[in-house]
Amino acid sequence: MTIPQALPFFSIAANFRAGSDTPRDFLERCLARLEAFEPAVGAFVCHDIAAARAAADRSAGRWRDGRPLSPIDGMPLGIKDIIETFDMPTEQGSPLFVGWRTGRDAASVAALREAGAVILGKVVTTEFAATEPRGTRNPWDRERTPGGSSSGSAAAVACGMAPAALGTQVVGSILRPASFCGCVGFKPSVGGINRGGSYDYFSQSCTGVLAASLEDAWLVAVNIAARAGGDPGYPGLQGPSEPPAPQCPRSLAVLQTSGWEDAEPEARAAFEAAAARLAEAGIALADRHADPVIDEVEAVIADAAPLTRTINAWEGRWPLNTYRDRDASKLSRSALERLAMAESMSLADYGAAIAVRQRNRETHVRLAARYDAIITLSAPGAAPVGLGSTGNPVFNVPASMLGIPAVSLPLFSIDGLPLGLQIAGFVGEDAQLFAVAAAIRDLLVG
Amino acid sequence: MTIPQALPFFSIAANFRAGSDTPRDFLERCLARLEAFEPAVGAFVCHDIAAARAAADRSAGRWRDGRPLSPIDGMPLGIKDIIETFDMPTEQGSPLFVGWRTGRDAASVAALREAGAVILGKVVTTEFAATEPRGTRNPWDRERTPGGSSSGSAAAVACGMAPAALGTQVVGSILRPASFCGCVGFKPSVGGINRGGSYDYFSQSCTGVLAASLEDAWLVAVNIAARAGGDPGYPGLQGPSEPPAPQCPRSLAVLQTSGWEDAEPEARAAFEAAAARLAEAGIALADRHADPVIDEVEAVIADAAPLTRTINAWEGRWPLNTYRDRDASKLSRSALERLAMAESMSLADYGAAIAVRQRNRETHVRLAARYDAIITLSAPGAAPVGLGSTGNPVFNVPASMLGIPAVSLPLFSIDGLPLGLQIAGFVGEDAQLFAVAAAIRDLLVG
Repeated sequence: MTIPQALPFFSIAANFRAGSDTPRDFLERCLARLEAFEPAVGAFVCHDIAAARAAADRSAGRWRDGRPLSPIDGMPLGIKDIIETFDMPTEQGSPLFVGWRTGRDAASVAALREAGAVILGKVVTTEFAATEPRGTRNPWDRERTPGGSSSGSAAAVACGMAPAALGTQVVGSILRPASFCGCVGFKPSVGGINRGGSYDYFSQSCTGVLAASLEDAWLVAVNIAARAGGDPGYPGLQGPSEPPAPQCPRSLAVLQTSGWEDAEPEARAAFEAAAARLAEAGIALADRHADPVIDEVEAVIADAAPLTRTINAWEGRWPLNTYRDRDASKLSRSALERLAMAESMSLADYGAAIAVRQRNRETHVRLAARYDAIITLSAPGAAPVGLGSTGNPVFNVPASMLGIPAVSLPLFSIDGLPLGLQIAGFVGEDAQLFAVAAAIRDLLVG
Repeated sequence: MTIPQALPFFSIAANFRAGSDTPRDFLERCLARLEAFEPAVGAFVCHDIAAARAAADRSAGRWRDGRPLSPIDGMPLGIKDIIETFDMPTEQGSPLFVGWRTGRDAASVAALREAGAVILGKVVTTEFAATEPRGTRNPWDRERTPGGSSSGSAAAVACGMAPAALGTQVVGSILRPASFCGCVGFKPSVGGINRGGSYDYFSQSCTGVLAASLEDAWLVAVNIAARAGGDPGYPGLQGPSEPPAPQCPRSLAVLQTSGWEDAEPEARAAFEAAAARLAEAGIALADRHADPVIDEVEAVIADAAPLTRTINAWEGRWPLNTYRDRDASKLSRSALERLAMAESMSLADYGAAIAVRQRNRETHVRLAARYDAIITLSAPGAAPVGLGSTGNPVFNVPASMLGIPAVSLPLFSIDGLPLGLQIAGFVGEDAQLFAVAAAIRDLLVG
C-alpha cells in the first residue's frame, strides 16, 4: 500500500465557488482512494457510489449557482454503522442485524443531507460499538488494529476515502482510532449532537466526527447541531458556523492520566518534546506536581475506566438482554460478559456510580478558572499489532467520563506510524477548544 | 355496554399464593372483559391470547411452587404501541409503520417479562403519541374520547381488559386518559423509567403506568425500574418493592393552573368538596392567595403549554423530517404543522426554551420545604363528546414541564362519567407521592 493521506474538504471548497473544482471531482478523488485502499483496509460495510455521484452532482449545481446549502455542501461522509440511514442497512457490527433496515435516517444523517452532504456509505463498527472487532485493518500497517469502535470511520478518513465520517465514543471510540489511523478525532461535550436514530444508549456517549482536518471536524459537527440539535434536553453544540479562528492558549493543564505508566517511551518523548515547544512559545504549562487542583483531577480520573465499565454495564443491560433472548449464539463472548455483569448489579449500584461521576465532573470544572485547555496523549503509543483487540483506551476514558469535549490531532509519528496529541476542554465550550487546538496545531506543525 | 370496571391485581395476588385463584383464572376474567368491551371500545391494536395464556400458565406454576418472580408475576399488561415488543408489531399509530417489527423488546417490556408479567397485546396510541386520534372510544360513552395519547392503555384498564398498561406522557398523555376513562394514572419523575426501545424522544417525556389501583401502578413501575433502571444518566425510580403505606400529608399546595378557568362548574365543585374534606381531616391546604411561593409557581406554570409546544416542536423535528421525506402523505396534518414549526426554529430558540423550563423547575422546588404534595384537577371536566380530539391537557402539562411525578385518582364522577383528582410531588420522591396519594384516596373514599 502507498502511504495513507487524508483529503481535507474545507480548504478546497473555495475552489467550488470559483469553479476550478467541483464536489463531483472531489468525490471522484475519494473514490480513487477507496479503490486503492479499501480491498486491504475494509473500512466500509456498504456504500452506494451511484447515489453518492448523483448527490455530488446536485451539490455541484448548487455551488455553481452560488447557493450551497452549507459549507459542507458536497462533502462525502461515511456513517458509523450503528447510525440509521434510510437507504442502507444498519447492521451494528452484529450478525443479529445483517441486512437490517429501518427505513429512516438518524437525526444526524438527516441533518447532513439537509446541509447538502453526500452520504457515501456505512463504515465498520465493532459489535454494538463496543469491543469486538469486525475486521477493519489499519491503513498504515494491515497487521495492526485501526482502533475502535469507530474503526471504519477512522480508517476511511485516514486514507482519504472521505474527508469525514461520523463516529461515537463512550470510552475511547473516536479519539483512539483517530490516533491510530492518523486523522483528527472530535468527541463533543456530552449531549452536543443529537443521537436520535443511533443505536447508542449510554449516558456518557456522544456522536462525534473523524475528519481530515480540525476545520472539517468542526463544520460537520456544527452543521449537524444547527439542524438536529443536541440530545433532547441539552442545548446542543454551540459555536460559529465557520471554523473558530486559532487562539493561542495562555495556560494548559498537562494530565498524565493513568495511561502515562502504560505509555511507550517514544510516545512519552514525543509528548514531552511538544510540551517543551509550547512552553517555549510562552504558554504556561502545569501538571499535578505544580498545581494541587490538577492533582485532584488526576486522582478522580484514575478510576475512570472501572467507573465507566460499571456505568456502561448497567446502561447496556438492555438491549443485550433482549438480544440474548433472541439468539445468544449471535452475541460475542464479551457482550455476554457485559450482560452478566449488568445482571449482577442493582439500581442502587448504578445510582452510586453516576453520583461518583457527577462529583468527578464537579472536581474537573475547577480547572476552568485556571487553564484554557488540557493536553495529554491520545493513546499509549502507535496502533498495536493484532486485529483481535482495538487497543488500550486508557487516555480517552477520562474525557468520556467527564463529559468534556476533546480532540485528537495527528501530530506525532512513531516508527512511521501516527499518534495523536489530545486536547480537551470544558463542557459547552467546544468552540473555544477548537480555537485553542488550531493554535496548538499551528505552533507544533509550523 | 355495561358499566366499565377496572380489575385490580395486587389485592387478589395473595389468593395465588393461597391457591384459591391463579394467574390463568385472572387472565380469563380479563379476556371476558375484552370480549365484552373491545368491539365497541377498540383499545387494542393487536393481541396474542394464546401466548398470554401460556405465559399465565407458567406464572401459575411459579405461584404454586411459592416462587413468583415478583409481586407482578402473572399480571396481564397492555403495551402502548410506541413501545417495542419482540413478538408483535410496533405501529406507532402511523400508517408508515403498519406491520413494523423490530425483533426486540423495549427495556420496559423486557423488564416486565423478567418479572413474570404477561404481555397481552399492544394498545392504541395516537399518531406518534401526539394528537391525532386512532379511533379508540371511551368505555363509558362510545361517543366520547378516551383521551390520549395513551388512549388504548386507559380504555383497556378502565374496563378490566388488563389491570395495567404502559403509557407515556410528554404533555398530558397518561393523566388525561386516566381521568377520562376512570383508572389510575402515574407519570413518574422525569427519567424514572428507562425509555429504551420506546419511539419517544422528548426530554420531558416519561414512560408511566395506567392501572386499576395505585398499588398496581406502583408495582409495575418499581418492578420495571429495578430491572431496567431509568433513562440513562438518571438514578431511576426509587422506592420500596411493595406499595408504599398510606401516609397522611400535613400540608398540601392547591394549584389552580391555567386550567381552572376552563374547568366546568361541576368539576370545580367536586374538587372544592374534596379539598374541604381534606381540610376537615386536619390537612393544611394553601393556594396562591395564601402563599406567595404558590403564587410564583402558578405564574411559572401559566405558560406551561406554549413552552412545552416549543420544546417538543424542536425535539420532534427528527424523526418527523425523515418520515416526511419518506412519504408525507402518510403524516397527519398536525404532524406536518409541528414539523413546520420546528423548521422555523433555531437551536438558540430551543436553548432559550429549555433554560426557561429549568428556571421554572427551580421555582417549583421551593414548594418542597412547605408542602407534602400538590393537588389539582386531572382535567377540566369529564371526557368531551367527539373522537376528533383527545381533549384538553391544560391540567396535565405543568407536571410534564416541571418533570415532577404525578398521579390521577378516579375519585370524582360527573353525570355518571369519571374525573380524576391529580396529586403531584417532587422529583425523585415518587414513593412519597404514592404514600400521600394512598392516604388521600382512603380519606376521600372512606
